[in-house]
Amino acid sequence: MSIAPNAEEFLADFQTMSQFGATGNGGVDRQAASPADAEQRLWFRKLLESRGLDVRYDQIGNEWGLLEVVPGAPYVVVGSHMDSQPTAGKYDGAFGVLAAAHAAFRLQAEWEAGTRPDPTYNLAVVNWFNEEGSRFKPSMMGSSVFTGKLSLDEALKVSDVKGISVRSALDEHGFRSHWQGPKAAYCAEIHVEQGRSLERDDVTIGLVHSNWAANKYEFVVHGEQAHTGSALIEDRRDALLGASMLVVVAREIANSFPGVVHTSVGQLDVYPNSPVVVPSRVSLLLDLRSADETALAEADARLYRRVAEIEAEANVTVERKTAHTWPVMPYQPEGVELSAKAAAGLGLSYKPVMTLAGHDSTNMKDLVKTVMLFVPSVEGLSHNEAEYTKDEDLISGVEMLTEVVARLSNGELDG
Amino acid sequence: MSIAPNAEEFLADFQTMSQFGATGNGGVDRQAASPADAEQRLWFRKLLESRGLDVRYDQIGNEWGLLEVVPGAPYVVVGSHMDSQPTAGKYDGAFGVLAAAHAAFRLQAEWEAGTRPDPTYNLAVVNWFNEEGSRFKPSMMGSSVFTGKLSLDEALKVSDVKGISVRSALDEHGFRSHWQGPKAAYCAEIHVEQGRSLERDDVTIGLVHSNWAANKYEFVVHGEQAHTGSALIEDRRDALLGASMLVVVAREIANSFPGVVHTSVGQLDVYPNSPVVVPSRVSLLLDLRSADETALAEADARLYRRVAEIEAEANVTVERKTAHTWPVMPYQPEGVELSAKAAAGLGLSYKPVMTLAGHDSTNMKDLVKTVMLFVPSVEGLSHNEAEYTKDEDLISGVEMLTEVVARLSNGELDG
Repeated sequence: MSIAPNAEEFLADFQTMSQFGATGNGGVDRQAASPADAEQRLWFRKLLESRGLDVRYDQIGNEWGLLEVVPGAPYVVVGSHMDSQPTAGKYDGAFGVLAAAHAAFRLQAEWEAGTRPDPTYNLAVVNWFNEEGSRFKPSMMGSSVFTGKLSLDEALKVSDVKGISVRSALDEHGFRSHWQGPKAAYCAEIHVEQGRSLERDDVTIGLVHSNWAANKYEFVVHGEQAHTGSALIEDRRDALLGASMLVVVAREIANSFPGVVHTSVGQLDVYPNSPVVVPSRVSLLLDLRSADETALAEADARLYRRVAEIEAEANVTVERKTAHTWPVMPYQPEGVELSAKAAAGLGLSYKPVMTLAGHDSTNMKDLVKTVMLFVPSVEGLSHNEAEYTKDEDLISGVEMLTEVVARLSNGELDG
Repeated sequence: MSIAPNAEEFLADFQTMSQFGATGNGGVDRQAASPADAEQRLWFRKLLESRGLDVRYDQIGNEWGLLEVVPGAPYVVVGSHMDSQPTAGKYDGAFGVLAAAHAAFRLQAEWEAGTRPDPTYNLAVVNWFNEEGSRFKPSMMGSSVFTGKLSLDEALKVSDVKGISVRSALDEHGFRSHWQGPKAAYCAEIHVEQGRSLERDDVTIGLVHSNWAANKYEFVVHGEQAHTGSALIEDRRDALLGASMLVVVAREIANSFPGVVHTSVGQLDVYPNSPVVVPSRVSLLLDLRSADETALAEADARLYRRVAEIEAEANVTVERKTAHTWPVMPYQPEGVELSAKAAAGLGLSYKPVMTLAGHDSTNMKDLVKTVMLFVPSVEGLSHNEAEYTKDEDLISGVEMLTEVVARLSNGELDG
């Protein structure tokens, strides 16, 4: 592949940005508002400012680069997130933010040169705060506050395991103001696929038409402390036994809907977590996901029935709190159609896909018409230091995003 | 019950000592070398010094109160531990240390008054460092170093979850010297039962004749990070699923040896422990215990076979490290016999029992002839804030320990 000057610049910037919080194994560790995340945000600020964008932080720490071309008009919002899981791949989120910036740089140059007609809308590059939710829960915090799905007060009060609040973590770096962010007209996001479907079908661009439904629960299993050695087995009320049964049952349920229901427990905390004490309390986060809402409801009901059995078998009580649920929801079909035209115009292969993971665009599509794009991810690895997307696919992604944003800016979806 | 002046003083001291690290629910939180543990140790130091005992800290932070009656003679070592689990009962360990101090006070007074013949040995009250092992692993650290079962260097290097080492935690409070501790002649310890056998049979004193065998393992389950939403179920290598299967299997094995094998997982740590990441590594501490070594070996072999199945089913690898094992080991029968005579002489009901939990005396009995005594614990609750022993049983325990220590000090087991 011959690399255009624009593309070379993009790859150089991507290499630079991957060094913030780099791990030994080719991945990154950039949890929200951590030193590495803060350093990278400041680097990104400078990059945007060097191209004349006006950089501002809103009330929940989203980092905005505003390109005002049409005074007073609303903005096409384009971006993703630069925060990461504790040991993560370098493409997840970060690719989409840098692609958004480079799309803005190109359109700005073309608008200035007059090689592209003047737009109807302004452009806002965004680096959403805390999409990952590993340090501060819930995930997609910045876009949830921006779209009014989560109250600002609630979000600012959330604390990490060390007791540091979102408010003070943001203020430490000057990442917070009273501004609510720009007025959005449309939204676009590009992301690596986190699945194998594009790679399998040898397609370059995925046009996301809807998201999988998800039910996310926090379970708290309550037992009673006892001595691991001396307490009689029949007297024990072992919260960790109950929690473990729940983890095993969740997988059994997923196995009974092969390929249709996904489930996992990513986080589990034991109290008092001492070698010689039967645990009295275990909290865990369990999610059930499916593209098929009927299957999801059935899986959910099965899980609920099994919880009652677990309570009896392990002599514990299980408390279930709903953390977050969302149905299968379409992205606007006219956005998918616009993207298909854009891809065809660029000569890029494309196909419609669903997203299994949540994205900031999942929030944004409820506020404005939103386009979500994927590029292939080798072996579909995600939340893994070995996550990898080929340079040529990254570059095709930037081309594609640029074209989509140009069309949105021109008001192609207006009316 | 009419309470003797000695007994009243004991109960008052016990009430005072239960206030160090007191929790809201009647229990205590006094992890090794924590502020509450340190405060209590200094209080105990003053109590011992007020009665003329010479208080010293040895190389691993054991707190000694020496009563030298026979210049140059070895010591009868009597004590237990004052550190606790994070949310624990107030009797576990603490009762035995205070009982040892009061036994020493009484014998000292009787020797001085000439109402009891002069002893052959000196007396050393001991508050062993870090018996519980919740903050610093392994448990029984102080007595393990004293008896040469654990190297001093290894113990001092152990760190808690915050990275604070045993060395610096001890030094912070001046709890460490280069002294190796007194030369032991015999040892005695009294403890609440942590089981229901004395209560069930309405017996006041348990004479411990041996301990259950135990195999303690650290398992590390290795999987691979992936996105909890998007990764295909068949691609997942979920370390938490493997670990949960192990917890469930351990209980199944215990259930297949009813009343004979005890097993538990008290501690389990998940990495990266983020809501949307399939865990790549889970470490857990699992113990198998039995009074029947054949049953224990069979349970162990079954667990080992099941590990291979779990590796295949959950697509993980399971690493097993031996943390600590001990066989069924008798306390010296002549010590049990001496205790039976002492109890009979005092008119206290008694019976032989085994200990399911480990104690510092479990270490000490390999160094010198050692007596281990129990008093009843209501409902056998242990490592639980509701742990409870009746005052009259505490007082009978102090009487009993005093008599046993007097006999040991007189050289009744010599020869």
